[in-house]
Amino acid sequence: MKLWQKNIASLAEVETFTVGKDREMDLYLAPFDVLGSLAHIQMLESVGLLTKTELTSLQEELKRIYAVIEKGEFKLQDDVEDIHSQVELLLTQALGDTGKKIHSARSRNDQVLVDVKLFLRGELESLVASVHSLFELLQTQSEKYKDHLFPGYTHLQLAMPSSFGLWFGAYAESLVDDLNTVKAAYEVVNKNPLGSAAGYGSSFPINRTLTTQLLGFRDLNYNVVYAQMGRGKAERIVAQSMANIADTLAKLSMDACLYLNQNFDFISFPAELTTGSSIMPHKKNPDVFELIRSHCNRIKALPNEITMMTTNLPSGYHRDLQLLKEHLFPAFKTLKDCIEMAGLMLSNIEVKKDIVKDEKYKFIFSVEEVNKLVLQGVPFRDAYKQIGLDIEAGKFTYDTNIQHTHEGSIGNLGTEQVRRQINEVISSFDFEKVHTAIAALTRL
Amino acid sequence: MKLWQKNIASLAEVETFTVGKDREMDLYLAPFDVLGSLAHIQMLESVGLLTKTELTSLQEELKRIYAVIEKGEFKLQDDVEDIHSQVELLLTQALGDTGKKIHSARSRNDQVLVDVKLFLRGELESLVASVHSLFELLQTQSEKYKDHLFPGYTHLQLAMPSSFGLWFGAYAESLVDDLNTVKAAYEVVNKNPLGSAAGYGSSFPINRTLTTQLLGFRDLNYNVVYAQMGRGKAERIVAQSMANIADTLAKLSMDACLYLNQNFDFISFPAELTTGSSIMPHKKNPDVFELIRSHCNRIKALPNEITMMTTNLPSGYHRDLQLLKEHLFPAFKTLKDCIEMAGLMLSNIEVKKDIVKDEKYKFIFSVEEVNKLVLQGVPFRDAYKQIGLDIEAGKFTYDTNIQHTHEGSIGNLGTEQVRRQINEVISSFDFEKVHTAIAALTRL
Amino acid sequence: MKLWQKNIASLAEVETFTVGKDREMDLYLAPFDVLGSLAHIQMLESVGLLTKTELTSLQEELKRIYAVIEKGEFKLQDDVEDIHSQVELLLTQALGDTGKKIHSARSRNDQVLVDVKLFLRGELESLVASVHSLFELLQTQSEKYKDHLFPGYTHLQLAMPSSFGLWFGAYAESLVDDLNTVKAAYEVVNKNPLGSAAGYGSSFPINRTLTTQLLGFRDLNYNVVYAQMGRGKAERIVAQSMANIADTLAKLSMDACLYLNQNFDFISFPAELTTGSSIMPHKKNPDVFELIRSHCNRIKALPNEITMMTTNLPSGYHRDLQLLKEHLFPAFKTLKDCIEMAGLMLSNIEVKKDIVKDEKYKFIFSVEEVNKLVLQGVPFRDAYKQIGLDIEAGKFTYDTNIQHTHEGSIGNLGTEQVRRQINEVISSFDFEKVHTAIAALTRL
Amino acid sequence: MKLWQKNIASLAEVETFTVGKDREMDLYLAPFDVLGSLAHIQMLESVGLLTKTELTSLQEELKRIYAVIEKGEFKLQDDVEDIHSQVELLLTQALGDTGKKIHSARSRNDQVLVDVKLFLRGELESLVASVHSLFELLQTQSEKYKDHLFPGYTHLQLAMPSSFGLWFGAYAESLVDDLNTVKAAYEVVNKNPLGSAAGYGSSFPINRTLTTQLLGFRDLNYNVVYAQMGRGKAERIVAQSMANIADTLAKLSMDACLYLNQNFDFISFPAELTTGSSIMPHKKNPDVFELIRSHCNRIKALPNEITMMTTNLPSGYHRDLQLLKEHLFPAFKTLKDCIEMAGLMLSNIEVKKDIVKDEKYKFIFSVEEVNKLVLQGVPFRDAYKQIGLDIEAGKFTYDTNIQHTHEGSIGNLGTEQVRRQINEVISSFDFEKVHTAIAALTRL
Repeated sequence: MKLWQKNIASLAEVETFTVGKDREMDLYLAPFDVLGSLAHIQMLESVGLLTKTELTSLQEELKRIYAVIEKGEFKLQDDVEDIHSQVELLLTQALGDTGKKIHSARSRNDQVLVDVKLFLRGELESLVASVHSLFELLQTQSEKYKDHLFPGYTHLQLAMPSSFGLWFGAYAESLVDDLNTVKAAYEVVNKNPLGSAAGYGSSFPINRTLTTQLLGFRDLNYNVVYAQMGRGKAERIVAQSMANIADTLAKLSMDACLYLNQNFDFISFPAELTTGSSIMPHKKNPDVFELIRSHCNRIKALPNEITMMTTNLPSGYHRDLQLLKEHLFPAFKTLKDCIEMAGLMLSNIEVKKDIVKDEKYKFIFSVEEVNKLVLQGVPFRDAYKQIGLDIEAGKFTYDTNIQHTHEGSIGNLGTEQVRRQINEVISSFDFEKVHTAIAALTRL
Repeated sequence: MKLWQKNIASLAEVETFTVGKDREMDLYLAPFDVLGSLAHIQMLESVGLLTKTELTSLQEELKRIYAVIEKGEFKLQDDVEDIHSQVELLLTQALGDTGKKIHSARSRNDQVLVDVKLFLRGELESLVASVHSLFELLQTQSEKYKDHLFPGYTHLQLAMPSSFGLWFGAYAESLVDDLNTVKAAYEVVNKNPLGSAAGYGSSFPINRTLTTQLLGFRDLNYNVVYAQMGRGKAERIVAQSMANIADTLAKLSMDACLYLNQNFDFISFPAELTTGSSIMPHKKNPDVFELIRSHCNRIKALPNEITMMTTNLPSGYHRDLQLLKEHLFPAFKTLKDCIEMAGLMLSNIEVKKDIVKDEKYKFIFSVEEVNKLVLQGVPFRDAYKQIGLDIEAGKFTYDTNIQHTHEGSIGNLGTEQVRRQINEVISSFDFEKVHTAIAALTRL
Repeated sequence: MKLWQKNIASLAEVETFTVGKDREMDLYLAPFDVLGSLAHIQMLESVGLLTKTELTSLQEELKRIYAVIEKGEFKLQDDVEDIHSQVELLLTQALGDTGKKIHSARSRNDQVLVDVKLFLRGELESLVASVHSLFELLQTQSEKYKDHLFPGYTHLQLAMPSSFGLWFGAYAESLVDDLNTVKAAYEVVNKNPLGSAAGYGSSFPINRTLTTQLLGFRDLNYNVVYAQMGRGKAERIVAQSMANIADTLAKLSMDACLYLNQNFDFISFPAELTTGSSIMPHKKNPDVFELIRSHCNRIKALPNEITMMTTNLPSGYHRDLQLLKEHLFPAFKTLKDCIEMAGLMLSNIEVKKDIVKDEKYKFIFSVEEVNKLVLQGVPFRDAYKQIGLDIEAGKFTYDTNIQHTHEGSIGNLGTEQVRRQINEVISSFDFEKVHTAIAALTRL
Repeated sequence: MKLWQKNIASLAEVETFTVGKDREMDLYLAPFDVLGSLAHIQMLESVGLLTKTELTSLQEELKRIYAVIEKGEFKLQDDVEDIHSQVELLLTQALGDTGKKIHSARSRNDQVLVDVKLFLRGELESLVASVHSLFELLQTQSEKYKDHLFPGYTHLQLAMPSSFGLWFGAYAESLVDDLNTVKAAYEVVNKNPLGSAAGYGSSFPINRTLTTQLLGFRDLNYNVVYAQMGRGKAERIVAQSMANIADTLAKLSMDACLYLNQNFDFISFPAELTTGSSIMPHKKNPDVFELIRSHCNRIKALPNEITMMTTNLPSGYHRDLQLLKEHLFPAFKTLKDCIEMAGLMLSNIEVKKDIVKDEKYKFIFSVEEVNKLVLQGVPFRDAYKQIGLDIEAGKFTYDTNIQHTHEGSIGNLGTEQVRRQINEVISSFDFEKVHTAIAALTRL
């Protein structure tokens, strides 16, 4: 039988196991850790736990570190376990014992909580900007191709005329609803947990309202037990909102792969954006869309993963939470990359003309012809019967120049109204307030 | 080899298979189907597709059916496939051919879309009310038990003093963030898909803005392709928000089961609310909380199920969507039942007094004693060392009468501020607008 | 604030909440509960805890109840909570106090555990039979249509010639691997938990080896703590194996919907098995396949749901486990219905002839032409270049009569070898042993 | 509006996006890619597609590369996209055009398929060995602590006496059932897909039975369309089996965290294996178990993620499949690390003695006392009543020296029988056959 001995080698393995990917993950948190400390020390001074002089020297040093991080030149030294230790080390090297005073009335749990919330808040803002760009592209293409009809399907069977105006516009509008869920996630994230200490508060007379203002948070996580409970929960709700965007992108990619398929042949892309073969000249593999679809389907599984990892944990901190960073943190870049790639592909799409002129699509116009008769006063049942008989007799005629005028239809896409919708959602975020606060905090 | 023959028996099986549970599920939709029709016919008349007389007779009949549904006396006849057919049948029996005119410029897909959105909108409102009740109870209990301390744990290890004021209050505040996600779901649901026909619009000059107003929707799903795409998506986003509430309840239940465990022994419940045994008088099985936990953990898996069922379906209607009703629709009642049961249990909870007087919990006060010294001017490091030495020497003394004064701490729970938070969220729903619209539509 | 009072009404609600759907779910377990009791009492008599006379009268009565259940005439009385109480009631009505002796040295937990395992074992056997039928049909169709070529796709782009022989055969072979996982589930399920009492064993000198033999179990769950731990775990592993079969069916359905789409137009079904429209004569909605796909995608989410509901529960029984029945138990019928419906559809499929004769598919033969040159001795690079030039020059010629001879290719499907594979798996189940044991136990 | 231009920069981003993490992931596949090629070329020579001389020189070179990989010295050059290109490059550098001949009658898809299956097969073997070690440790500890009683819980309420013999033994037995599902995954993985080309076979007269033997596969994936369909499916089934092991470890970790909690205080660990605090001397944070639990709960979500990423993809290769490697491949090391860490912790566990001597646990013996009376001939009902009255009167006496003798109970753990079970499962894998084949293939 294998014996597991508790010796130097196995203890080193324990160290490696418990640190895990934290050093890598903590780089995501670096700027936010400094921001949290800047707010914390200003508050400490305001309640008399730091002198004015200590505050000034700590601020100078922290702002310097922040600038290094912003330049992308920040690193964790090899023997340093996490971001908090690295910052403390730099402060102590520069300021001696004063450097350690940033830890007064604060715990690691506390610090990670506020770092994660600030990080998530920043990522959500950046995600909103990406989504907004893609939205505008989709609306532009929707207007550009509003007269390009193609068959609409139900049950994947030919059904009614649709248009590329509708198709692009549908995905634009989908992003509006997705952003509604991002807004909810932002509300959850934009509350200050700092001051909850190990999850049960402290006897120091700290001023959490002040750090809330300094960090530009909209409100506090008041209850300190709830502040701790927010770990895992904030991640899950953020992941849910990402999953919604991902679902929109995955569906768009599925459509694109289908419409690029030679049996459909509705769209095309420049050769540089697909993979081909000289002996199969028809082949234009949509690798980019397939990978967007796959990345996005993975992101759609992320809320479930986070839920699984936090299910049935009693209240209070558990080390389990550390691992939530590993798949969530890189997912922001992945999702934004997917948006970028979708933007590149859709900017260069070629939409086929006159698709519905093909005889094989003629019956998608039969409902139109029935409706025309109805609008001319023929009872629906008679109109339906007449068109049915025409079709049976091979006498069916139709006009591909269809007239849909109601809100959101082929001839009346509602582009402006949907733009108004997204502008309402985006303006409700109030990013400006955050920018102002952070600028004030980090101004040299 | 088994032969599958296409005969009367197997075709009947096909019928049974395709209808599935739809007759049962459609009962959830009945009142909303009538509301959709009331709005639709008023619009049809306004654009000249119905006469004033036809409108009046259809309205009378539909309002009568609505009243029957409200009384709980509505049924689907045995040979009728779904709610839409049942309503049409009743109209035709009463009004002859006029009854069939409600289908002008509308399709089944269209009708299901609007029914589902109206149903979800109503369920979310009802859910918000349930959550609000539980929130108030939690805040009341938080204030009532604000002086009852008990040990707070990190890593499930004794850590710091906590209180039942904090514990109840944490779950109250958790519900505020949950409602933020319900609000996002409500925004998604509270847009009108009616008029999208089979998902590609129609050539009838319908007025979708009018039906939007009549049904009290906040806005339209403009793009008709997107309106159809909303099926599955609305369900998923609603389920995500339900999963958030469910997670709060499941965590509370886990805590309750743990605290009721005899090794913890922090809380108790009247015998009628637990299961006991005369030969094991200590035994008080928390069946109610275990079942809440289990129901809620299932609801937490529901968004994933919906996501799985809709993944990689190209745009356009697919019959797959029919099955989304089966687990989602009954889940509203389940979740509200769980809230009710949690409310009943927490109304009758007995919280043990003087828990922290027990000697075994003494070290949870060590941080307090360190902090006291620090606040008296002793450097942290020295204070920490002194307490450590006292503990080692068996001389550690402490005071269980702790003073936490900052926002959200044991001595300053922030009850009012958190109540303000939930009131902000709830008032943003604007349920009144919906009530007014529905009342106008159904007034006899 | 709403007050939750603990009164008669609310206690009745607690009763309703805790019983939940158990009365409905217990009907699934009825025959197995009787089997478990038959084995248990025979064992009790063998260790002296029942007299021979008591055993005989209990056996007669239980076999009578078993016969009633088999006839489908068994019911739970309105005021009876579960199957165990109902059986005990019937025994006591018939035999007085002797009827209660079936509970000696046994607990409810114990009884549910063995009932669930026997139920799952039976359902898996029935599922294997369904899968086997579908397998045979797929192989038959594979042989029947082995010469019907159609385009094979990669990246959903035209790639190489495939055949309906390959297509049907692929799904047949997929079922073999699925059954390997069903076999593992069967191994897990086919072990006897009876005798674990409340999960910690008992001081009665029971003979668990005897009940194992009597119930035809292959082995015991020895450790009583593990026997209890098997609840939730057995369900999860069974659901995983069902998810594998479901995935095969869902993929087949996706293909079928795509190939029935008019742009592909590779297959067709009789009008009675699809939904059509007289004004869109091309329309043949594949509702049956869409519903199979949707049901199966839901079943694919089931293992995750079970995992979520049991995650982080410490060892020992929790009432949470009760709810695992609700989605799993009906899923067996759903999955078998899906297999039935797929069997009916595929029995009546019409496969188009001469698909690849269509000019638009010509380049799927280019690799064939390259390979031919290579086999004639032309270096690959030169052959590839030559065909590429021919294509460019519009001189490409090809032969749709392709020669693939290796194992598992168009011309050599491997039907016999794959049949051998499934026979190996199925024979490894050894259902006969179970049948013999159950027959001996229930023989009147 | 942002413009996405198709220029050098954006095309480089496309390249980065499509390659993704493949270079990193391909290092996992390196040795298996060489094995696949060794088998392929020997087969090519056997059917006349390579000369004996070409075969010999290719074999020498490939075996040399294999040795480099085995030494851990293999790398992908910066400009090389994947493992297949790197191997080809090395062969061409050494052998010129002969190097390219390894690609005859084979495609990339084909090659990845066989690489992935060989990799998974190897990982499963290694996982079985890890599980076996942990199993033996658990059984050893079970025997060592068989007389250490502690309370068993149901509903997390004190219920009956349990023992550490039972506790350790339960998890050992759990691993047996887990290995049954690993066995099923191994069966699915241990079939040869090589020769399926792009998923539709080829016109070359290849001998797939020969490569099956050379690579030590138990059988073939015959049908070439099914061979391709195995991608994603093999990964899912493997992940399901990993999830089962992970669930056992996560549950064990949950128990360990609970039993280490000071309110339970059943077990302890050396200070080096937990995290402590000098001012909270009771604190022993079980970080290792918390991280095992968290890693394992993530692995439990992996099958769902894979299922999501492959759902509703029609048959045939899609680039989506590339991303399945990213979470699955590293998960093997994670799971084995978790097993290692659990082994280290459980090797050094200290189990408290005389736990049940504590007065507070006395009622867990009440059932024992009832049963004793029953075994002395007192009717159960009377015995139960008498003990109940004794308890009520404060006269309850009991003996902690309990006698459980049946199979799998405290006094009769069934260690040997469970060892027989695991030996049966492990021997059924027949790893030796694989070792022999690989040794023959790579022998210099």
